[in-house]
Amino acid sequence: MPHSYLKPLLDNNGSKIILLVLDGLGGIALTQDGKTALEYAKTPHLDRLAEEGTLGQTIPIRYGITPGSGPAHLALFGYEPLEYVIGRGALSAAGINLSVKAGDIAARGNLSTFDKNRNILDRRAGRISQPDAAPVIALLNQVQIPGVEVEVRQVKEYRFVLVMRGDGLDSSLNDTDPQETGVQPLTVEAQNPKAKKTAELINKWIEEAYQVLSDQPVANGFLLRGFATDPGFPSYEDAYELEAVCIAEYPMYKGVSRLVGMDVIEDVGAGPAGEFTTAKDHWNEHDFFFIHIKKTDSYGEDGNLEAKAKIIEEVDQAIPILLDLNPDVILVTGDHSTPSVLKSHSWHPVPFLLWAPKTHRTDHETSFTERNCARGGLGTFPAVETMSLALAHAGRLQKFGA
Amino acid sequence: MPHSYLKPLLDNNGSKIILLVLDGLGGIALTQDGKTALEYAKTPHLDRLAEEGTLGQTIPIRYGITPGSGPAHLALFGYEPLEYVIGRGALSAAGINLSVKAGDIAARGNLSTFDKNRNILDRRAGRISQPDAAPVIALLNQVQIPGVEVEVRQVKEYRFVLVMRGDGLDSSLNDTDPQETGVQPLTVEAQNPKAKKTAELINKWIEEAYQVLSDQPVANGFLLRGFATDPGFPSYEDAYELEAVCIAEYPMYKGVSRLVGMDVIEDVGAGPAGEFTTAKDHWNEHDFFFIHIKKTDSYGEDGNLEAKAKIIEEVDQAIPILLDLNPDVILVTGDHSTPSVLKSHSWHPVPFLLWAPKTHRTDHETSFTERNCARGGLGTFPAVETMSLALAHAGRLQKFGA
Repeated sequence: MPHSYLKPLLDNNGSKIILLVLDGLGGIALTQDGKTALEYAKTPHLDRLAEEGTLGQTIPIRYGITPGSGPAHLALFGYEPLEYVIGRGALSAAGINLSVKAGDIAARGNLSTFDKNRNILDRRAGRISQPDAAPVIALLNQVQIPGVEVEVRQVKEYRFVLVMRGDGLDSSLNDTDPQETGVQPLTVEAQNPKAKKTAELINKWIEEAYQVLSDQPVANGFLLRGFATDPGFPSYEDAYELEAVCIAEYPMYKGVSRLVGMDVIEDVGAGPAGEFTTAKDHWNEHDFFFIHIKKTDSYGEDGNLEAKAKIIEEVDQAIPILLDLNPDVILVTGDHSTPSVLKSHSWHPVPFLLWAPKTHRTDHETSFTERNCARGGLGTFPAVETMSLALAHAGRLQKFGA
Repeated sequence: MPHSYLKPLLDNNGSKIILLVLDGLGGIALTQDGKTALEYAKTPHLDRLAEEGTLGQTIPIRYGITPGSGPAHLALFGYEPLEYVIGRGALSAAGINLSVKAGDIAARGNLSTFDKNRNILDRRAGRISQPDAAPVIALLNQVQIPGVEVEVRQVKEYRFVLVMRGDGLDSSLNDTDPQETGVQPLTVEAQNPKAKKTAELINKWIEEAYQVLSDQPVANGFLLRGFATDPGFPSYEDAYELEAVCIAEYPMYKGVSRLVGMDVIEDVGAGPAGEFTTAKDHWNEHDFFFIHIKKTDSYGEDGNLEAKAKIIEEVDQAIPILLDLNPDVILVTGDHSTPSVLKSHSWHPVPFLLWAPKTHRTDHETSFTERNCARGGLGTFPAVETMSLALAHAGRLQKFGA
């Protein structure tokens, strides 16, 4: 359970919280006169919230640790990321709303190209397109073996998810993907005795599926990785008494939200203004709104500071849509830093803005930048404390002790 | 293991890290217009690194806890100081490179002056000099009893280390030093049943050794304390995949470095410039350089702010020697604070400077002082996170999770 001391203190007062996550928000300036994307961007609305509210910076996982998106979001949601671990298969299945219950197993798959000796020529089948991959994946979905039910569903292009349902399954299995070409895919082996039967079943299914694809011109093979089962996380409702909803454009963020029991809106408006308008359209149905902006991270990974700054400006311009809803708490932060100069996720602390006009304590800072956040009133704190701050500033936590 | 989540993420990319420890660096200014030694010192080079890089301050052990040198350095090295405890005997033995293996026991000893009834007149034998003490300690080294091998070696002046090697030894033994005069030394007793045989052996050795010294004019007795065995810590190589080296003038810091598997350079240049030149001379042999400056602490303990500031200035003037080596990461910090006004170690946070020109995030701060460090971009953090930050900024840690 996220911070078990919170639960006895919960007071569902109907207040509303917005957690706005700009993926990979943090950047780095290597010199005093350098600028991060957040410093480069013109952000009058965010600066106004910063001036009125409180700044801080978060450590996503631990000092020095560069997070993947899964653990970084779990931390923001209050789930200690070293304790709550999601297998890639379960995360991918959740992303496309494919049911994986406790005891089911799920794996992430890529269509691939094999030679006639079943050596891997291309691990991604030439990145075969969505329409070209769809009928091949439909063929895989028809491969069934006795005793279990197998479902295979396309995620995007050559990527798919496989779910096997039946009794006595165990996901302690190695990947078939050797992560290199010129060799055969690996056989699945049980990583502990309980998974022996599952390994036999999955190998049998794989062999039949290889036969079915053998005539395909390009995608005549596939690779599986990240075998996992439902991680069985406590829900937001259980942990926080919040009716939470996810507004995100990308499957992975919908997936991690489903794993903590959030509702997920499938039909989301495009861009920051579109996503905020979706929140507005569903305002009365929920009391916690997780809104995820992907492109700050994507442009950070491209090393494109100007484009990252432009997305931040688009977010800034759309902020009035959120303010017009009169939320009790707005948090603006990232899941991790993605500095354009590094072109990758990084370990640097993440800017954090808390605005709660009835409860926030203002600090000395008046603009929303990395440098100002480092001196902000909330200090430097673990991202896993985000939900505690959100609940407190929303008036949803009673006094601890007499 | 230091932070066990680091090990699976290690990526030995050959980058180079310097950890420069100014012992007891932190000071306190009791009033707004007061100055610490670090504020008093002219430090143009350190200020330049501060302006370019990031500041912060560390909590060595826990809030309010004044550390000894052993735990303070273990924390900087990433070894949780409440968990990794070194007995004084083992630390002293390591300091003079005297082998203590698992199962051996080591104790710290002082030559002393006893009266004819074996009551203690002087616990340190009038602080007898190095040459006067040497032949007495050589006599002790000749005292042997059946079943074990005993080695006694001088550390400095009246101080020595005793190591007993044999089967079935156990270091759960009390000190013989009663920490007062006018009474007899204590008999060694086993603190648990497994140490019973060892207590008998050590008491037998002590009795024979007292006889051997009984004719000495001054040092006719001795006191033992800090019985300990090899703590068996994981090595830097194991924990971090680093080829680490210690450059220090004092045995104790060499000792704690040896206990974490660092190489130790015995022939070290004098003063900051000398030590930095030693680093330069060995630059290609290692990838982690722990450089220890002792005199900041010594002058702090003397209450001599000007002399402490002068040593800091000497360090500052020698910084270009390190910069010319093009290290990937330089960390400048202390193991603890030793404010001149307190004339002792203290619990105050310790100034921390991180300079890593390819990966640091600059902050608002432009000079290396306690007050600026308190507002720096790294915030206030446990000293035990130092190595995680060092590894991350050196590009030696891969992403955690997908």
